[in-house]
Amino acid sequence: MTTPVYILGGYQTDFARNWLKEGKDVVAMIHEAVREGLAAAELDPQEVEVAHVGNFAAELYCKQGQLGGFLPEIHPAFSGLPTARHEAACASGSVAILMAMAEIEAGRYQLALVIGVEQMKTVDPATGGDFLGTAAWYEKEAKGIEFPFPKLFGRLGDEYERRFGLQEKHLLRIAEINFSNARRNPRAQTRDWFTDETQNLTSGKYANPVAGRLKVRDCSQVTDGAVSLFLASETCARTYAARRGLQLEQLPRILGWGHRTAPMRFEAKVAESQGTPYVLPHTRQAIVDAFTRAGLADVWSVDGIETHDCFTTSEYMAIDHFGITPPGESWRAIEEGIIEFGGKLPINPSGGLIGCGHPVGATGVRQVLDAYKQVTGRAGGYQIDGAKKIATLNIGGSGTTSVAMVIGV
Amino acid sequence: MTTPVYILGGYQTDFARNWLKEGKDVVAMIHEAVREGLAAAELDPQEVEVAHVGNFAAELYCKQGQLGGFLPEIHPAFSGLPTARHEAACASGSVAILMAMAEIEAGRYQLALVIGVEQMKTVDPATGGDFLGTAAWYEKEAKGIEFPFPKLFGRLGDEYERRFGLQEKHLLRIAEINFSNARRNPRAQTRDWFTDETQNLTSGKYANPVAGRLKVRDCSQVTDGAVSLFLASETCARTYAARRGLQLEQLPRILGWGHRTAPMRFEAKVAESQGTPYVLPHTRQAIVDAFTRAGLADVWSVDGIETHDCFTTSEYMAIDHFGITPPGESWRAIEEGIIEFGGKLPINPSGGLIGCGHPVGATGVRQVLDAYKQVTGRAGGYQIDGAKKIATLNIGGSGTTSVAMVIGV
Repeated sequence: MTTPVYILGGYQTDFARNWLKEGKDVVAMIHEAVREGLAAAELDPQEVEVAHVGNFAAELYCKQGQLGGFLPEIHPAFSGLPTARHEAACASGSVAILMAMAEIEAGRYQLALVIGVEQMKTVDPATGGDFLGTAAWYEKEAKGIEFPFPKLFGRLGDEYERRFGLQEKHLLRIAEINFSNARRNPRAQTRDWFTDETQNLTSGKYANPVAGRLKVRDCSQVTDGAVSLFLASETCARTYAARRGLQLEQLPRILGWGHRTAPMRFEAKVAESQGTPYVLPHTRQAIVDAFTRAGLADVWSVDGIETHDCFTTSEYMAIDHFGITPPGESWRAIEEGIIEFGGKLPINPSGGLIGCGHPVGATGVRQVLDAYKQVTGRAGGYQIDGAKKIATLNIGGSGTTSVAMVIGV
Repeated sequence: MTTPVYILGGYQTDFARNWLKEGKDVVAMIHEAVREGLAAAELDPQEVEVAHVGNFAAELYCKQGQLGGFLPEIHPAFSGLPTARHEAACASGSVAILMAMAEIEAGRYQLALVIGVEQMKTVDPATGGDFLGTAAWYEKEAKGIEFPFPKLFGRLGDEYERRFGLQEKHLLRIAEINFSNARRNPRAQTRDWFTDETQNLTSGKYANPVAGRLKVRDCSQVTDGAVSLFLASETCARTYAARRGLQLEQLPRILGWGHRTAPMRFEAKVAESQGTPYVLPHTRQAIVDAFTRAGLADVWSVDGIETHDCFTTSEYMAIDHFGITPPGESWRAIEEGIIEFGGKLPINPSGGLIGCGHPVGATGVRQVLDAYKQVTGRAGGYQIDGAKKIATLNIGGSGTTSVAMVIGV
């Protein structure tokens, strides 16, 4: 990383909300994320020089495109603001961050607003599942298939089973930890869902099968959510720090990033990775790139991880792909309690996509905002004591787009 | 512009094709643009370091998202390639170029592939018109309205009429010039449509009303198209030039760019611009920014323009917004023959969106590829003699996103 990019703060909407039931649309979601984000980061709208929107498929869920065009609608100070919307399925939020960073690194702008947003509770579950199929190769992998994505990530579990063996109890434990963590997060979608989450996950509706080996408890949520994040150049961050009586070094930065794309079809991914150590080698490479750019030796240099648990199998994959265990031995980290809140390397203190929720285009931005909260001691009930560095992993499609980041002070 | 970005070439599909009738999908369109683009630019796929896709709404037209994921599917050398898709309605192609440039300027990559693509002939005209409504504020400006965009750009004409007066004959002449220019372009959609375009435009179906003052002849086409473009850092361009026996200075560059966003609603745009000289002040500003970054004094420093004539009214607007005439006097440039092929400052030698076609997400990339062709003497039958610099203007929504560029050697 030659040019540092600083994080000044941001805002996450309550992921438990149903905006349609409140009579509010995706524009209102963007509006709240921006308004409250400006307040949280103590910034004036006049200071924002560019805005990037991460969104997967508002065209389908909300019959609305061109989301960048709403910025000038929500505050007169944004009139004329350069904007664009970015998409890489469930990694849309992360690519929006990468583009905002690139423009800052290029010296175009000093202060960028990034918004990740998705309003998903506008359609019934079957329709929503079909829409998500457009994040895979729709004609070949999703058309006419009920809930294509649980099936694809079930096959990720199948590949682990075939190569290394995979036990249901380890996926169950991933679900338990995420739901349990979410109870400490006042903006998590599932925070009030369980009085005894373990009991509920092993019986009743949460144990109902969805696709292949995956049950309801293995799946992330259908979520409405918007998240804002403010990114700054060193010049801008220095001024920002000074007016708060802080040193520049006290502001968190994006220390490193990785961005890779695997072939679209899950079948092509698996075929390509045969004979290599990792099931998703491009996801592994994105993580390695992020740590290399951050100048960090390995995963033990960070204090926690926010990863993409769209399904328990993707978190199971993330454990070995981050290098917490050798390939295929993710179960060891689960059994040893390493990834639990309070463990040696907590994963998803926020509750992740399973517990906190998964508003598709917002997730990558939510992860980085949570990393910011952790490294600045703002994570409240889900704070990792003394966290200085947090890694993130955001995935689009069935492991197609992988974006990893390291955030730290 | 501190860091130069060079253009190494690219490829445009024949905009007259109907890919669905050929049994081919948007993936095949991307494939052809990339394969033929590599051949045209004499590049190996291994040299490409990142890919950016500009696309408006493949989710709606093709039931497909995550278009960046198809790059690794179309060539094994692209496996792992970082990719993302970018959207700003009809300016999607230009924002994809801006993002590719930003990553090069930031020093992340040396050679970027940009693809603009839209497959639109998958639905009937009424459905397609409704889909285009998502480029406006759908709930307020398009829902339940037949062909919302001709109506919005008809209102642009109304605003010109109210402020300055506007005569039908001048819009007609814009249509005539674009259709006429398209006949020289072997990849233009309408190149074979007329034996006598003037006669056909003033009677029969081309004179049929569409919305407000706009007739069929005033409207851009529904087009299937894909365009690729290769952008390079100075280091990469130097190597590229050397292996062809060229000087670096002989390769064209993006000399300047401007990027602005106006409020989403056309009504809000017009309200905001009352009392100011230009009807769309943010579009004007994007143009001024591009020329300023290019270090050029005014529009007479360029040899031609490729502009966004989604409707004749938007080209009428472009004429005064580029500064060819004072505000409201675009008609003078039309009457004096300035914008004609062979005129003092030709507009749309390619035929523009009306004559060449308007595959929404591809248009911004097509404009820059045509600018590249002009300044390198590759434009064949529609070559502007001795062209050294060409300006482009790409608009998303009803003037919401404006991206202007200057390309030159």
